[in-house]
Amino acid sequence: MPAPDDALRRSGRAARPDGSVVAVGEDVPPVAFGGREVVLVAGPCAVESREQVERTARAVVAAGAALLRGGAFKGRTSPYAFPGLGAEGLDVLRDVGRALGVPVCSEVLDAEHVAAFRGKVDLLQVGARNMQNVSLLRACGRSGLPVLLKRGLAATVEEWLLAAEYVMSEGNERVILCERGIRTFEPSTRATLDLAGVVVARQRTHLPVIVDPSHAAGRRALVPALGRAALAAGADGLIVEVHPDPDRALSDGPQALTPEDFEGLVADCRAIGQALGRPVLARA
Amino acid sequence: MPAPDDALRRSGRAARPDGSVVAVGEDVPPVAFGGREVVLVAGPCAVESREQVERTARAVVAAGAALLRGGAFKGRTSPYAFPGLGAEGLDVLRDVGRALGVPVCSEVLDAEHVAAFRGKVDLLQVGARNMQNVSLLRACGRSGLPVLLKRGLAATVEEWLLAAEYVMSEGNERVILCERGIRTFEPSTRATLDLAGVVVARQRTHLPVIVDPSHAAGRRALVPALGRAALAAGADGLIVEVHPDPDRALSDGPQALTPEDFEGLVADCRAIGQALGRPVLARA
Amino acid sequence: MPAPDDALRRSGRAARPDGSVVAVGEDVPPVAFGGREVVLVAGPCAVESREQVERTARAVVAAGAALLRGGAFKGRTSPYAFPGLGAEGLDVLRDVGRALGVPVCSEVLDAEHVAAFRGKVDLLQVGARNMQNVSLLRACGRSGLPVLLKRGLAATVEEWLLAAEYVMSEGNERVILCERGIRTFEPSTRATLDLAGVVVARQRTHLPVIVDPSHAAGRRALVPALGRAALAAGADGLIVEVHPDPDRALSDGPQALTPEDFEGLVADCRAIGQALGRPVLARA
Amino acid sequence: MPAPDDALRRSGRAARPDGSVVAVGEDVPPVAFGGREVVLVAGPCAVESREQVERTARAVVAAGAALLRGGAFKGRTSPYAFPGLGAEGLDVLRDVGRALGVPVCSEVLDAEHVAAFRGKVDLLQVGARNMQNVSLLRACGRSGLPVLLKRGLAATVEEWLLAAEYVMSEGNERVILCERGIRTFEPSTRATLDLAGVVVARQRTHLPVIVDPSHAAGRRALVPALGRAALAAGADGLIVEVHPDPDRALSDGPQALTPEDFEGLVADCRAIGQALGRPVLARA
Repeated sequence: MPAPDDALRRSGRAARPDGSVVAVGEDVPPVAFGGREVVLVAGPCAVESREQVERTARAVVAAGAALLRGGAFKGRTSPYAFPGLGAEGLDVLRDVGRALGVPVCSEVLDAEHVAAFRGKVDLLQVGARNMQNVSLLRACGRSGLPVLLKRGLAATVEEWLLAAEYVMSEGNERVILCERGIRTFEPSTRATLDLAGVVVARQRTHLPVIVDPSHAAGRRALVPALGRAALAAGADGLIVEVHPDPDRALSDGPQALTPEDFEGLVADCRAIGQALGRPVLARA
Repeated sequence: MPAPDDALRRSGRAARPDGSVVAVGEDVPPVAFGGREVVLVAGPCAVESREQVERTARAVVAAGAALLRGGAFKGRTSPYAFPGLGAEGLDVLRDVGRALGVPVCSEVLDAEHVAAFRGKVDLLQVGARNMQNVSLLRACGRSGLPVLLKRGLAATVEEWLLAAEYVMSEGNERVILCERGIRTFEPSTRATLDLAGVVVARQRTHLPVIVDPSHAAGRRALVPALGRAALAAGADGLIVEVHPDPDRALSDGPQALTPEDFEGLVADCRAIGQALGRPVLARA
Repeated sequence: MPAPDDALRRSGRAARPDGSVVAVGEDVPPVAFGGREVVLVAGPCAVESREQVERTARAVVAAGAALLRGGAFKGRTSPYAFPGLGAEGLDVLRDVGRALGVPVCSEVLDAEHVAAFRGKVDLLQVGARNMQNVSLLRACGRSGLPVLLKRGLAATVEEWLLAAEYVMSEGNERVILCERGIRTFEPSTRATLDLAGVVVARQRTHLPVIVDPSHAAGRRALVPALGRAALAAGADGLIVEVHPDPDRALSDGPQALTPEDFEGLVADCRAIGQALGRPVLARA
Repeated sequence: MPAPDDALRRSGRAARPDGSVVAVGEDVPPVAFGGREVVLVAGPCAVESREQVERTARAVVAAGAALLRGGAFKGRTSPYAFPGLGAEGLDVLRDVGRALGVPVCSEVLDAEHVAAFRGKVDLLQVGARNMQNVSLLRACGRSGLPVLLKRGLAATVEEWLLAAEYVMSEGNERVILCERGIRTFEPSTRATLDLAGVVVARQRTHLPVIVDPSHAAGRRALVPALGRAALAAGADGLIVEVHPDPDRALSDGPQALTPEDFEGLVADCRAIGQALGRPVLARA
């Protein structure tokens, strides 16, 4: 059952028939999501050390990424897995982003933490596990920062859009949606990427929609094909995990691209972008 | 892939081969989950008014419920749906429970709210949407209150048990698991109740496991059959939504039993309990 | 979307508001499905040898099974797995059933084979993989034999009922539905048993509905609990895999009960049946 | 659990590390699937009349389709839905294909019918509902005709490849796989297109893999985006439903493209194909 139109009163396409462009970047040249150009976001799953982030960031920015990602607070399935470096990780991310002149994005797990992200990250990520964490959505809505809202593993497109509406109902219009795969019976991938969901989300809302092929695939060998497919389906960008030494990654190594893999993916994205009239955004 | 044994180091069956009994009830006679007797929890989806809770509570306690449930903070899919009465709702719940001498249970949505639940509820419920809200799990683990942990809509049994482990890793051993249906393709019910998951959870952990047939069914006509089935499968109890006037309920009316329906269900539970050697717990 | 009422014109509850009783048994005393008494069907997954079927049949009939099952033509996932003994297996099954005075049931894979089943089996089973094999459904509808129609792994209740309607549209009213689990993301079981589907099927049609806990569970240790739950939910019977030596079974050994396990399950079924007013059918 | 290598002994990539090219076309210039060029298959869901097929065929061939599809025997969910024109429909399809010089493809529902398809169609389609109809798979394996094997709605990639192995185990190496969406909880599309499944199938086997965006989408507005995405993911072709007057289609009208829509899709495919080095196959 689709939501009654007024349930998507701020996010619905009717509110802005021409679509939104969301600018991301507080103290660096802003990057625009939802315009003609597609945006590539890349970086490590987890911030492990300053050296690791610097090395990865230089490589992905040189290759064509316009925004750096990295997890400082990690919501792991097990309480005994690496939980991230926390606030210290945010500092690393900010420093590296500022040095390279690119905005940074990191996941926030808790409404109480949102304040601590201000001044450090340019884009607040709400993870799939928290897509219906109402307190967190509302806190992000009051943060003044743009929000990257991942679709939950079991969320319908409808519920995903209503989660965006939660953020927007607090007065924050800068929401970017991110499809990252839904949970199905298929065991050969970590999740099943729902590219029709991207198309439906773009039709029903005015919000930019990007795709995370890394978490959907769960395996490096599938990431480039899914990234290409996402752009061909009309996504406004990609967010990709890259690690300089995936075998030693503290989190999600098997799905991380090497910097060389990422270069290849960027080349493919440029080719597809040119073919379909949506070039890859180059850094300012 | 099952978690390595040490990931379930506190929740795993090996930690307590004979199983745990979790006592719930701070200022009222405590109710034991996980013993020979099965426990019936009942009450309205949402606390709407003192009169509504009193009326429902008297009926369900008279019929055989040992614990009262009621939602004060509601995590609705839409930001424009009834959000619950908040702290005032907790007061109503506490007053009614104390008056009848039964413990009460209510859902907590946010780590920041946990403190406000102390002294008001006897059992903290973590809802399906928040099953992997790590901050909330950890806060519940530090609360000193027992926790009812609902399985997420897309959570494997493995992930559910690891969520319990999060609570327990903070020193709180009083966790009760609650199966409430998983998301599948079948449209005739709101979720698909996974009773094998109940059996697997009981085999792999020492924790009590109860079942919520109301949210799984989504429709009143299916609730009694699922409740009976849950007990026959070996569940340690049920949590059921009851409303004195379901058609006027502010939340989830279609799945609420009337008090009369609930009486019928209790009679069935007693019959099954007698047949299988697990009587329904009577009030102290 | 529910089918328009006239799509279930023969199977719909409106056609026979009091429900159907389906008699099974050609040259042996017939067994009635859908009456007050619940029916237990048991036997090996595959007919492996005359000795194996005799041994299993004697045990399950002694324990309380009213009908013998056994696969002669096996639709295995791999072309290189044991395909069953074919027509020879049907002869074994018939002989053993006749000797014990119980009807027998076996799966038919192909419309062309239906004729060969006449005079050998009393109940034609259409397997989950063939639930939408329209040619087979129509051939079963013209066979003159009752049909046990398993729900497909990805079939909605709606589609399952429409498959029954295919059989009935050829003039054969003797259809028994069988829920055996649907495919979901949960890896700890082979399928997720959908007991609400049983209730919905009974509400929407007049056909008897039985449950196969063995294929849903995929593991012996879960079968009795699911069998008990199915009867408590209102199923009209169970179909259970039993093997005298499960570790040496040529097909699906891990989910087969031993004869001793089956005796325990029958005792539980009798207890639940007595509690709920639906005793287990005893042999004529 | 992946199949042991020898279960994919004929279909596995190891059997032909460079991949297979499957030629389709008996009395017309053959079309090669699995080569450098991608193949577009198009036509109506159902053959309704000679005039409808001629009109559609001329349009899709003019636009760039290399092969004509059309259903003569339809396996509908309800026994009361339009079942197709049967053998007469095959004649129409053959005549129109021969006149235009393009091979034709149609679905076979029953092992008994396979013989009747010889001399009429160039490519036997096994539909999603019949992916594990072992008798049909074996009959197709003995037919001498190439086979288009659609993935079942609830089939893992593993099971899909094993179904191909069934066909190949009868000596027929000419199998083309077709991904058409899997069943998930998402209601905004008819199925969820699993493009990672395409990549996995291409990695594990040497068989060509094409994609059906029409059945996955279930709605016209989503088909072009999914078709583009499929090619970007590396599919060897598309099969698309086109109808000259979708609102009057007897089957699946809502998902049919108009001839004009199809022209637009072909233009996109050409652009993507050029970008990625896989041009669209032009007619001989």
